[in-house]
Amino acid sequence: MLKSYNAAVLVIGNEILSGRTVDQNVNFLAKRLGEMGIKLMEVRFIPDIEQTIITAINELRKTFTYVFTTGGIGPTHDDITTECVAKAFGVPLIQDTDARNRLQSHYKETQLNDARLKMALVPKDAILIDNSVSAAPGYKIENVFVFAGIPRIMQAMFEAAIPFLHGGAIIHSIEIRDYVSESQIAGTLASVQQQNPSVEIGSYPFTEKDGRYGVSIVLRSTDKVKLAELEKILRPLIKTQS
Amino acid sequence: MLKSYNAAVLVIGNEILSGRTVDQNVNFLAKRLGEMGIKLMEVRFIPDIEQTIITAINELRKTFTYVFTTGGIGPTHDDITTECVAKAFGVPLIQDTDARNRLQSHYKETQLNDARLKMALVPKDAILIDNSVSAAPGYKIENVFVFAGIPRIMQAMFEAAIPFLHGGAIIHSIEIRDYVSESQIAGTLASVQQQNPSVEIGSYPFTEKDGRYGVSIVLRSTDKVKLAELEKILRPLIKTQS
Repeated sequence: MLKSYNAAVLVIGNEILSGRTVDQNVNFLAKRLGEMGIKLMEVRFIPDIEQTIITAINELRKTFTYVFTTGGIGPTHDDITTECVAKAFGVPLIQDTDARNRLQSHYKETQLNDARLKMALVPKDAILIDNSVSAAPGYKIENVFVFAGIPRIMQAMFEAAIPFLHGGAIIHSIEIRDYVSESQIAGTLASVQQQNPSVEIGSYPFTEKDGRYGVSIVLRSTDKVKLAELEKILRPLIKTQS
Repeated sequence: MLKSYNAAVLVIGNEILSGRTVDQNVNFLAKRLGEMGIKLMEVRFIPDIEQTIITAINELRKTFTYVFTTGGIGPTHDDITTECVAKAFGVPLIQDTDARNRLQSHYKETQLNDARLKMALVPKDAILIDNSVSAAPGYKIENVFVFAGIPRIMQAMFEAAIPFLHGGAIIHSIEIRDYVSESQIAGTLASVQQQNPSVEIGSYPFTEKDGRYGVSIVLRSTDKVKLAELEKILRPLIKTQS
């Protein structure tokens, strides 16, 4: 059996919790990690409060294979993620020469002010993660990956971080969609689920604009053969109820 | 000084963590709670795993004034939120007569099958929360509010829960938007923030489609007078940098 890999995402920023900004990173990460055989097991949104960030990082990094943080690595006073990561690991912040050089070649020398130089600070022994969009890098320290909050930059950093990630067995899925009420098929689903514990069966009701309703049954498993078998059994069972 | 009220949201469901479904409830709750003077302090997304749900509910309900859960209260086998809430509180599940009556008048007697009756089960001493969309109610037990995951239903339940919620001082906000780089104003912002600890100053860079970039400075405080004062100071300071 393949080793299994999982992950947590830590979304850092007051703007998400106040409702000003809608997070756009979790769904991207959930999908990309799934494609790589890394199961996303927890997401937390927390504010820009030092102790809250430190505690969350330490809890999550001990529990999951990988932790991805988004937000709080820019040049302003409210960007406190990096100093919190350093404190969580009990290491000092250092100015990374490579990061400084990247900023220097991106900005003219005269534009490399103190605020921008803050983005060359990383926890000691962190490994830089490329930012192909705007130079200031992300980084990894042990199993924690620290990314920007701006979706375009976060996505670039994720792609650059892939060489550092190990994935396990890919989880495949099959969707069966029918115009039947969830409660009509609940008994059938429950017994099929009980007989097939290796497949995760999810039931998601929907209502269309014209008022017609139905349900999407999603089968998920690392075992493609088993999935196909179960689809063959379930499809007609659901059909007979509709 | 007004008492302060805060909250956490617990998003329960494999479909969010697998990336199949994009959460649409957190932003709604963040905004509505903010308008009522209830500060959203944490959001967690967790899978449909009994022990994970129980632990999260118990952690969050002890830490925050209110906890709102979304998802997992439908009629199928993968809807396990209610039994987990009962276990978290150490109380039995009971069939609520009022909930049963609501389901009975919504569905014809012949359609009130066992699966649907599951939606009349609530933890002992829970108080029902109306569902004006599809009858099956949400409920509250102590400071935990248990809502459906479907956004339209969740929103109806939230509105129905308002009589049970106490709000504190409303947090007002002012946004100053200018075409200036974040790093140019970082020093100014940091010193203004230090001199005005009662106002939370957030800095959010943006890039427009034509490539022009700038920053939105968001000032947040319960003190409207202070906010207006600070806006008067900050606006020209930012202007001189652009």
